Amino acid sequence: MMSAVDAPDRTVWIDGDADGTVEVIDQRYLPFDVVVRPVRDAEDMHDVIADMVVRGAGCIGACAGYGVLLATRQVADLPTDQAGVELRRLADHLMAARPTAVNLAWAVRRQLAALEGIDDPAERIAIAHREAEAIADEDVAACAAIGEHGLALVREVHERTGRPVNVMTHCNAGWLAFVEHGSATAPMYAAHAAGIPIRVFVSETRPRGQGARLTAWELDRAGIDVSLIVDNAAGHLLQHGEVDMVIVGSDRTTRHGDVANKIGTYLKAVAARDNDVPFYAAMPSSTLDFSIGDGLAGVPIEERGADEVTLVSGRPSDGGEETAVRICPEGVGATNPGFDVTPARLVTGIITERGICEASEAALTALHPELASGGDR
Amino acid sequence: MMSAVDAPDRTVWIDGDADGTVEVIDQRYLPFDVVVRPVRDAEDMHDVIADMVVRGAGCIGACAGYGVLLATRQVADLPTDQAGVELRRLADHLMAARPTAVNLAWAVRRQLAALEGIDDPAERIAIAHREAEAIADEDVAACAAIGEHGLALVREVHERTGRPVNVMTHCNAGWLAFVEHGSATAPMYAAHAAGIPIRVFVSETRPRGQGARLTAWELDRAGIDVSLIVDNAAGHLLQHGEVDMVIVGSDRTTRHGDVANKIGTYLKAVAARDNDVPFYAAMPSSTLDFSIGDGLAGVPIEERGADEVTLVSGRPSDGGEETAVRICPEGVGATNPGFDVTPARLVTGIITERGICEASEAALTALHPELASGGDR
Repeated sequence: MMSAVDAPDRTVWIDGDADGTVEVIDQRYLPFDVVVRPVRDAEDMHDVIADMVVRGAGCIGACAGYGVLLATRQVADLPTDQAGVELRRLADHLMAARPTAVNLAWAVRRQLAALEGIDDPAERIAIAHREAEAIADEDVAACAAIGEHGLALVREVHERTGRPVNVMTHCNAGWLAFVEHGSATAPMYAAHAAGIPIRVFVSETRPRGQGARLTAWELDRAGIDVSLIVDNAAGHLLQHGEVDMVIVGSDRTTRHGDVANKIGTYLKAVAARDNDVPFYAAMPSSTLDFSIGDGLAGVPIEERGADEVTLVSGRPSDGGEETAVRICPEGVGATNPGFDVTPARLVTGIITERGICEASEAALTALHPELASGGDR
Repeated sequence: MMSAVDAPDRTVWIDGDADGTVEVIDQRYLPFDVVVRPVRDAEDMHDVIADMVVRGAGCIGACAGYGVLLATRQVADLPTDQAGVELRRLADHLMAARPTAVNLAWAVRRQLAALEGIDDPAERIAIAHREAEAIADEDVAACAAIGEHGLALVREVHERTGRPVNVMTHCNAGWLAFVEHGSATAPMYAAHAAGIPIRVFVSETRPRGQGARLTAWELDRAGIDVSLIVDNAAGHLLQHGEVDMVIVGSDRTTRHGDVANKIGTYLKAVAARDNDVPFYAAMPSSTLDFSIGDGLAGVPIEERGADEVTLVSGRPSDGGEETAVRICPEGVGATNPGFDVTPARLVTGIITERGICEASEAALTALHPELASGGDR
């Protein structure tokens, strides 16, 4: 275990060269302990992803890239034919860790394409290493670009008002969900680095508390002024001019600009609009799903278990092990939709690594023309 | 301790005649234990109110009435002069238990007015007993009338759709906050009693969880179909036609019809409007405050302690004592407004014991003309 002071700067990395140890932050222990977990091999990376040791599209994609690197090491001593079959088996197993994670399959397939026809074990490892680092670096670069575009929005408010800029966010679309910077948090880190004073209202994000556990931790660690709020408080703060802008992430954004994101996002968006506060969704363009138009009709919303609603997990005041407490009478039923869809009409702008555009098919297509033509994502 | 099956039907009552034991439900143990707490004397009733053994305007008012009855017993053996002074002292002490609780001072003053000039100890006790029962019974009658008016709304939906009616509520404006029936819950109990099938989405109501702890408990106990949701889920359910109407209580409703209520109420109202779902606020007319017009500008919002945000209390899975767990990193700051104001434009109707009216000064005044003229509340 490491203290927060020693916390690493990426969510997944390789300690040294192509033969170094692959390590991840075990996010299940955050924010109470910062645990670095070495990953032994591709099967172990499967477990890391399946058991939600790591989560978040960008982070999972990068982990998958390193997972294939680990697989190339595992097959190095096998005869050529056998190595190819085993590599494919390990890759398939890795992809099955979270079947709905688009970035997972994408990263594994990208690795397999790069390794196509390469029989020399050392060359295979070198290529997989280069590709894994490229996948991670590209994620970092996309998030950094999102940060620069969003920074302009924050800077404009600061220059206009001359006071600290108040940003509200929801869930964790932070560094921890990617490799570095995050999506929704990238403009906050960029503003902080640029010396623009900001305060971030972080919404707890029941039921799983990613705002309280992850976003509050990572922003606080970076020295950013964090004010944790219950999800219910967002409306009152928006009504009273306490928030200059809302920036959230997205799990999937449709061709029309409808934003699917963690449950509760829509409530912030509708209250922001009611009070003329701008509402932005920030995401790498890989999150855009042009196969869907109307997000409310087309994005399937996962109904999750009742335990997430009826139990809350945290650390007891005696500092002991994290534990779950039941917050309601035994036997009461619960309804637990995991995500909601914010219609494009409530979204002031979409921030991707390409720039900021309005939440409309025309604007999204202008910035991402290759998606409209069904091009490679 | 009693099991839920044996739970009493009122929040405060006298066990027998004027000399019977006054008892309350100790709401601090709900929903995990139903504890009936005898109240010894007026000082003890002060503590019951101050320590939030009971809460809710109607319940506190009724408790105050019984508190003065207890005081009349305490002074029965004192010489006449001394008895009057001591009664006044006990009454003042009782009123100081929660200085901002309007119903508390109102009930104590009503008792003192009824006891004015009465020197005979037995007569004093009899009058205080009669008055205490009247205060409680009037609260019950007002809530029952709210239930009948609200029932018409529920019945209309049921008759139109032929299916169970889905109601959403927030916090606890239930039986537990009054003496019987509650305000927001009264139409639900009335519908259930009338054989109209209903399902109630109960919002957890962070930070203090009154929905999860109290409303879920009392509706479930009454045999009503309860579905607990995190506060974040309200928008998604409203978007997808899962809710026929929202009914909440109110801590204070202004002359213009602006509704101050538990934090998070406004988010439900603005999302309800965005989806054309009717939003009602139910309250006894004693909650109307015609001294304020614009609720957003005029109703002071209490900023509460950070611990309510950073800690969540519940029962561990081993069934041990209720305990609090920290849900965020140590040292993170929090902002915790206790209430918000829903502007009248988002309120479909105000339900009082007099009937249902639109949330406007004209309509509220027509139904409560004595308030406009500054009459006795």
